[in-house]
Amino acid sequence: MKATLCKITYGTPEDFVPSRFAPSPKLPVRTLSPDSVPEITFSVSLRGCRLTLPLTAQTKIYGFGLQLNAFDHRGNKVTCRVNADPRSASGDSHAPVPFFVTNEGWGLYADTARSAVFQCGSDLNTGRSSLPETGETAVMTDTAELYRARTSEASVLTLEIPFASGVDLYFIKGDTVLDIVSAYNLLAGGGCMPPLWGLGNFYRCCGQFREEQVLETADDFRSLDLPCDTLGLEPGWHSHSYSCSFVWSERFPHHKAMLDRLAALGFKVNLWEHAFTNPAAPFYDKMIPFSGEYLVWNGLVPDFSLPGAEELFSSYHKTLCDEGVSGFKLDECDGSDFTGGWSFPDCARFPSGMDGEQYHHLFGTLYARTIKKALGSRRTLSEIRNLGALAAPYPFVLYSDLYDFGNFLTGVVNSGFSGLLWAPELRHAASKSDLIRRLQLTAFSAHSLINAWYMEKMPWLEFDATDEVRRILRLRMSFLPYLYTAFYDYHTEGKPPVRALVCDYPDADGISDEYLFGDLLVAPIAPEQDGREVWLPDGVWYGFFDGRRYEGGVHSVSTNDIPLYVKEGTLLPLADPVSHVDPDTVFDITLLPFGDCSDAVCRLIEDDGMTDGADCRVITLRQGEHPACKRYRIKP
Amino acid sequence: MKATLCKITYGTPEDFVPSRFAPSPKLPVRTLSPDSVPEITFSVSLRGCRLTLPLTAQTKIYGFGLQLNAFDHRGNKVTCRVNADPRSASGDSHAPVPFFVTNEGWGLYADTARSAVFQCGSDLNTGRSSLPETGETAVMTDTAELYRARTSEASVLTLEIPFASGVDLYFIKGDTVLDIVSAYNLLAGGGCMPPLWGLGNFYRCCGQFREEQVLETADDFRSLDLPCDTLGLEPGWHSHSYSCSFVWSERFPHHKAMLDRLAALGFKVNLWEHAFTNPAAPFYDKMIPFSGEYLVWNGLVPDFSLPGAEELFSSYHKTLCDEGVSGFKLDECDGSDFTGGWSFPDCARFPSGMDGEQYHHLFGTLYARTIKKALGSRRTLSEIRNLGALAAPYPFVLYSDLYDFGNFLTGVVNSGFSGLLWAPELRHAASKSDLIRRLQLTAFSAHSLINAWYMEKMPWLEFDATDEVRRILRLRMSFLPYLYTAFYDYHTEGKPPVRALVCDYPDADGISDEYLFGDLLVAPIAPEQDGREVWLPDGVWYGFFDGRRYEGGVHSVSTNDIPLYVKEGTLLPLADPVSHVDPDTVFDITLLPFGDCSDAVCRLIEDDGMTDGADCRVITLRQGEHPACKRYRIKP
Repeated sequence: MKATLCKITYGTPEDFVPSRFAPSPKLPVRTLSPDSVPEITFSVSLRGCRLTLPLTAQTKIYGFGLQLNAFDHRGNKVTCRVNADPRSASGDSHAPVPFFVTNEGWGLYADTARSAVFQCGSDLNTGRSSLPETGETAVMTDTAELYRARTSEASVLTLEIPFASGVDLYFIKGDTVLDIVSAYNLLAGGGCMPPLWGLGNFYRCCGQFREEQVLETADDFRSLDLPCDTLGLEPGWHSHSYSCSFVWSERFPHHKAMLDRLAALGFKVNLWEHAFTNPAAPFYDKMIPFSGEYLVWNGLVPDFSLPGAEELFSSYHKTLCDEGVSGFKLDECDGSDFTGGWSFPDCARFPSGMDGEQYHHLFGTLYARTIKKALGSRRTLSEIRNLGALAAPYPFVLYSDLYDFGNFLTGVVNSGFSGLLWAPELRHAASKSDLIRRLQLTAFSAHSLINAWYMEKMPWLEFDATDEVRRILRLRMSFLPYLYTAFYDYHTEGKPPVRALVCDYPDADGISDEYLFGDLLVAPIAPEQDGREVWLPDGVWYGFFDGRRYEGGVHSVSTNDIPLYVKEGTLLPLADPVSHVDPDTVFDITLLPFGDCSDAVCRLIEDDGMTDGADCRVITLRQGEHPACKRYRIKP
Repeated sequence: MKATLCKITYGTPEDFVPSRFAPSPKLPVRTLSPDSVPEITFSVSLRGCRLTLPLTAQTKIYGFGLQLNAFDHRGNKVTCRVNADPRSASGDSHAPVPFFVTNEGWGLYADTARSAVFQCGSDLNTGRSSLPETGETAVMTDTAELYRARTSEASVLTLEIPFASGVDLYFIKGDTVLDIVSAYNLLAGGGCMPPLWGLGNFYRCCGQFREEQVLETADDFRSLDLPCDTLGLEPGWHSHSYSCSFVWSERFPHHKAMLDRLAALGFKVNLWEHAFTNPAAPFYDKMIPFSGEYLVWNGLVPDFSLPGAEELFSSYHKTLCDEGVSGFKLDECDGSDFTGGWSFPDCARFPSGMDGEQYHHLFGTLYARTIKKALGSRRTLSEIRNLGALAAPYPFVLYSDLYDFGNFLTGVVNSGFSGLLWAPELRHAASKSDLIRRLQLTAFSAHSLINAWYMEKMPWLEFDATDEVRRILRLRMSFLPYLYTAFYDYHTEGKPPVRALVCDYPDADGISDEYLFGDLLVAPIAPEQDGREVWLPDGVWYGFFDGRRYEGGVHSVSTNDIPLYVKEGTLLPLADPVSHVDPDTVFDITLLPFGDCSDAVCRLIEDDGMTDGADCRVITLRQGEHPACKRYRIKP
C-alpha cells in the first residue's frame, strides 16, 4: 500500500452516515485525534458544523462524485446536493460524493449524508490592513473572466455540513492520486466485480415495445451480426410505471416465454423501474409502514435502510430474477430541483429516523443494496441514477438525461475519482458523425450502453451506419478480457478501471478530456470533428490502430477511429469478438506487443464469470507463452 | 382596502429577518394566534422549522420573487436561494422572495432571510391502504411528460425554513391577486417613487471607454435625435474594479469636467460598482471591522446592517453624488452557485451576528438602503442584482447576465408579484429582428435600459436600424407621464406599474407571456417572429397603433410593432417625446380616447419630479378639459 488512511472524529457525528451502510473496509483505518491535526479548524453552530483546511496556491481539487461540468474544483463552491440534470459547476449531481483528492498527495472523505458544501479556496478577512494594489487594472468585458476565481496563497478550504454537530473525516495520504483514490475505494470495501457478460454491449429497447417487438429486436441484433449481451426493457413492461407496479403489463402477455426465447438467443434481460411504489404493486399495503411521509407520483417511498422494506422489495424482485431477469435499471432515485421538484422533500421524515436530505444521499446506494440482495450470488452490471459515498462495491453504473458530449466525456474522466462508474450512453444522434463519436466514447467506457428508449428503430439505421457500428461493438468485445482484468483490480485493489490521467500521471493535472481505460490512454474526438490535440505523458506511446510511435507531448491527430494509445512495453490481450458471452464462452486471445515487451506481463482473470465468490485464478502471460486454460485460448 | 393582512407568529422567529430592516407598513397588521388557524401545521426539528398548508386541486401559485423560468409554481419545489444565472425552475433567483399569491384569494409571506423551501403541492403517505389504479397506463417517451407533477386533491404545501426555530407568517386575504400583491407592497412601506428622468431611456457605455468616448456617445445621442436621459459607466471608471476601489481611474482624468459637460447636455450619470471593497478604496482600513469573515476577490464584504458600515460607505458615495452622479448600478450582490462560487459562503460570519446565508438574502436590500442614504432626498432609478423580501420601496431595478428572450419576458410578467422591478435589458442582438423585439420589450418595462457594456458601437449601428430604434425610444418618452402616474400608484397604493394579467383579470391565470404596463395590455412578439396569438380578457379592447377594436378572446396578430391594447373607456395621456427630462420640462399632452370616454378620467401627477417628499398634486382630467398646470400642457 502506498497510501495511509486516518479517521479523525470531530464533535458528535450523526447516526445516518454512508459508512453505517457500507461493507467492511479492505484496508487498515488508523484513528487520529483532532488535536494532532492543528491545521484543521472545527466549530459547531445552529447551522451545523464547519471545518477549514489550508490550501497552497498550487492545490488542485478533484472528485465530489459524478461531476459533469467541472474537473478541477479549485476556487469553486461545490454543494454536494443530489440532483438530476445539473447544468452548471455547482456541485449538484446525480451522484455527489463528499470526497476529494488533491494533486498534493492527500485526499479527504467526510462521512456525511448531508448536502455538504465545500468552498474550495477562499481568502479570509484577517483584520489586518492591506497595502493597496498598485498600477492600473485592465477592464474586462467577458463574464467568464470577471468571475474567474482569484485566490491568494493564503486561502482555505471551508467545509460546511448542515444540521450535523460533528463528522468523521477520513484523511488519506498517498504517493499518487491513484493510490489515494484506490484507498478510498478500499475503505468502501473495494470496487464491484461485474459478470463477464455485463461488459458486453447493452441495448435498451423502445419504451413502447410489446414483447414481439423486443423479440424482433433480439433477432435483428443476431442477424445483423451486431454483438449484444443484454436487452433492457423500459417503463412499458410495468402495468403502471409512474409510480411503478412491478407487475408485467398486458403488452407482455407471454413474458416468461419471451424471457426463455431471449435466453436461448444468448441475451440477458434488464428491467427498468424506480422505487416509488404504485398502489397496484402486490406489496403496496405491506410497504406502507416502511415508507416515508411523502408520496411521489402517488407512490410510496420505501425506506430501504429498514430490513422490513429491504426484505419485501428484494424478495419480490427475487421472483423476477428467478424467472430470468438479470438486472434492473434503477431510475429516479436522485433529486429534482432542476426538473420541477417531483421527489420527496428534504424535510420528509422516514420511519428509520432519517430525514429526506439524508435519504436522498443514501437512496441510490441502499436501493442498489436491496436489488443486489434480490440477485443473490448472481452478478450483474446494471444502471442507477443515484449513488452516494462508499458505493464502489455496487455493480451499478450511473447515467443521465443530459446529453451534451462534453458533459458525458467529463463524466467519464471524473467518475473514477469517487468510486463511481458512468455510462455516456448513446441515445439519438443528430448525424452520422454524432452517432459514431458518441458510440466510440460509450464503447470505451465502463458500460457499453445504447439506450433507445424513445427510438423505435436502432438509431444507426437512419444514417446507414450499421457497418461502422458493428466495427465499434466488435472492438468492445475484443477488449472484454482486458476490461475484466481491470475490474478485477478495481475489486481487489480499488484501482478504477476508467479514470482521469492525473491518477497515474501527475503532470496531467490539467487534462480533463482524456482518460485511462484499463491502462490505455483514450482521447475521444467530439461529434462533427475529424481530429483533436492529444497530450501524451512522458515516455513512448503507440497508436492502437496504426501502431505509430509517439513521444510524450502534444500531438495533432486526425482519424475516424477513437484515438487510443498503448504504453511502450504493453502486452495487450485482444479477443476475437463474440456476439455475446455464454457461461462456457472461450475467448481466442491474441497477445499484441507494443514496443519492447521482453519484460512485459499480461494478466487475465479466469473464473465462472457470473457468480460472486466463484473460484478465481489470475493468469500471467509473457510473450510467446500459450498455456492452456478454460476461458482463454492464446493464439500462436 | 380590499385586502386584510394578519401576522401569525410560530415558535421563536429569528433576529435577522427582512421586516427588521424594512420601512413601516402602510396598512394595518392584525395579529392572529396559530391556534386560530388549525389548517396550518408547525413543527421544529434540528433542521429548522416546517409548516404545511392545505391546497385545493385548483390552487395556482405565483410569486417567489424574480423567477425567470416558471410562472405558476404549483407542483414545483421552490428553493428561495439567492443566485446569479439560474437556468431552471428551481426557485434559485437573483432576487428570491418568500412570498406567494394564489388564484384563490390569499397570499402568504414568510418573514425569513433563510433559503426557505416551498414544496408547492405534495401528497402524504396517510398510512391507509389504497385501491389499485385500474386499467392500463400509457407509456410515455418524453421526460417533460414523465416529470409532470401529478397531485391529487388532498395535497399540501410544505414550507421549510432551515436553522430557524420559528417564523412570522403574514397571511393576506384579498378580492383579487392585485389586492393581495398591493397589500404585500404596503407591508413593505409602498413602492418606490422614481424621478421623472429615471423613466426615460438609459444607455450603459462600453466598459473600455475613456472619458472622451463617453462624451462622444452623449453627443451621438443628441445628434442622432435618440432620446436618452441617463448614461451609465461600467467597471472601467474605477481604478480597480474586481474588487472595487470606488476611485476614478486614470481613464477619466477630468471626470468632474466630463460630469459637468454631460449635465449640460441633459444627461444623468450612473456608476457601476459592487460592494466588495478593494484595498485601494479610501475607506478600506476603516471598513475592516464592519466586514464579514471572508473576502471576495480580495475585497472586504461590508456588513451594511451595521450603522458604521452604512455610514462609511454612504458618506463616501455622497461625495460622488455631490460631484454630479445620479445613481449606481449595484452588481454582484447576489450569489454564485451557478457561476463558480465567487461570493462569500453561507457559513461566513458577519460582525452583526448574521451568517452568510442571511446576509445573501439581505445584502441587496441593505446595499440599496445604503446608497439611498448617500443620495439623500435626490431620487434615482438605478440597477441592482439582488433584492429580497419587502424591497418595494427601493428605487432599484433588477437585471441579469442571462439573455434568453423568454426568460426576460417571464421576468417582466413575474416581478410584479413580489414588489420587484425588472429590466429586460437590450445588450447585443443577433439580427435586426432580435434588436427590435428586445428593445420593444425593454421600452415597455419598468426600466428602458440598453446595456452596451461590451459593445464599442451602439448595438443598432451594425443593423442600420437607427430610425426604428429612434421610433421606439420616442414612444417610451410619450408614455412617461402615464408611467409616472403608475409609479405614483405603486408608491401610494402598492399597485405594481408592471404586472401579470392575472393580477387584474382572474381568467388570465394561465397567461404567462402578456402583462400590464400601467393598465395597458402588452403582448410582446419574440425575436424572428412576425406575430403571435394574443389573449384578451373579456370586454372591448383597442389596438394602440391601429385603433382596431377587439373583443375578449384569442386573436392572431401580425405586426412590426409591439402588440399593445387599451381598454374601452380609457383616456390615455400621450406626451410629445422630449430628448430627456429637465427639472423644468413641460410635457405637451394629447388625451387620446379609446372607445366611449364620456365617464373616463385621466390622472397625471405633478411634482418637482426629482425630490423625495416634494409637493405633489394629482390632476384629474376629463375629455375636453385643458387645465393649466406647470408640468403638463394639454393639447386641444
